Amino acid sequence: MRLRKVKNALDKLKESPYFIFDGKDYKGKWGNVFSNDRAIHIEIGCGKGQFILKLAEQNPDINYIAIEKYDSVLLRVKEKLDKNPQDNVRLVLFNAVEIESYFESGEVARIYLNFSDPWPKNCHEKRRLTSSKYLEQYENILKEGGKVFQKTDNRKFFEYSLQSWNNNGWHLERISLDLHKDTELYPDNITTEFEDKWSEVGPIYRLEAYKK
Amino acid sequence: MRLRKVKNALDKLKESPYFIFDGKDYKGKWGNVFSNDRAIHIEIGCGKGQFILKLAEQNPDINYIAIEKYDSVLLRVKEKLDKNPQDNVRLVLFNAVEIESYFESGEVARIYLNFSDPWPKNCHEKRRLTSSKYLEQYENILKEGGKVFQKTDNRKFFEYSLQSWNNNGWHLERISLDLHKDTELYPDNITTEFEDKWSEVGPIYRLEAYKK
Repeated sequence: MRLRKVKNALDKLKESPYFIFDGKDYKGKWGNVFSNDRAIHIEIGCGKGQFILKLAEQNPDINYIAIEKYDSVLLRVKEKLDKNPQDNVRLVLFNAVEIESYFESGEVARIYLNFSDPWPKNCHEKRRLTSSKYLEQYENILKEGGKVFQKTDNRKFFEYSLQSWNNNGWHLERISLDLHKDTELYPDNITTEFEDKWSEVGPIYRLEAYKK
Repeated sequence: MRLRKVKNALDKLKESPYFIFDGKDYKGKWGNVFSNDRAIHIEIGCGKGQFILKLAEQNPDINYIAIEKYDSVLLRVKEKLDKNPQDNVRLVLFNAVEIESYFESGEVARIYLNFSDPWPKNCHEKRRLTSSKYLEQYENILKEGGKVFQKTDNRKFFEYSLQSWNNNGWHLERISLDLHKDTELYPDNITTEFEDKWSEVGPIYRLEAYKK
């Protein structure tokens, strides 16, 4: 995700009722933010938000939390919400390493990882959102039966991820090694901005992972 | 693997010192066939044998058993051996469902599955060489630390296989979703006849699986 730095992006985010600045305070209490006890689905690295906003529109009975580490990027999601308000969405600004400071054990029903940074260098392995340390954190914040849905266009990152999920004892299902050719199997695929741009260059990989 | 039926193929195979007709008699005693106690690697569905013969040439200290269910196909391997004798290779004719009648528990150090029939229809799932029942058999005949090396060009079959290995508790490593682009990582890749023909049409998938 590359985007020009927007001046005072954080201040602009703070003006929005969708933006939760003090997200850590809601750890274990996200139901309060939405004033209901519906299931909570999160996207780690929501980018400009096309994916999660469409998903939220289609599923009004689920609460969505869009997480992004760059304020200038998250601002784009805020702007979309300004035009099309969606009660079941909130925006939070933080780096995924802090995920357990934001969610209580078992608080999340689903995690989406879309086109996460592949961090191709071996020395950056630990930064990949499917490295062991992150998987442990996902396991902790997910409720029983909760799943992670992953999509990427990066072959090396997906090969790595398959092995990491597998070797950390996660169960895999609904793997596709060319998602956009599997329209019959995945008729509900919602694309990200990135996906729209790159899916014609090569295959999009996806999987679902869960811990028994 | 499609091949014209060769008349009296079995009789011709029987003429070869490489062909083991009564393979079941050697269950637990394959060392006797080779007159040594070297590691035994097998290929299930060896086709015309290009892969296993090259591999055997490169690894004279390993015993290779080429398994094929079609006599007319296995005859091609015999013909190659007639021209280029290789002491460390034997040919056996049987259907993989019988694998445990041919090998004792822990007798095999490595299994190769190259471009196995994908059996695409759901009703034929059990025939796929990576379905649960086969995986159990592999686990049984493999020695501790033994591995299965799988290659295929069939995307749906590989997606299925990834899930099957994973859900049956096998560990996966060295996954490639486009083997022929990974020449640096897999400089020793030996191709099959099928692979030579089809690798330019789409990616070749591969993995290594083992049970801890």
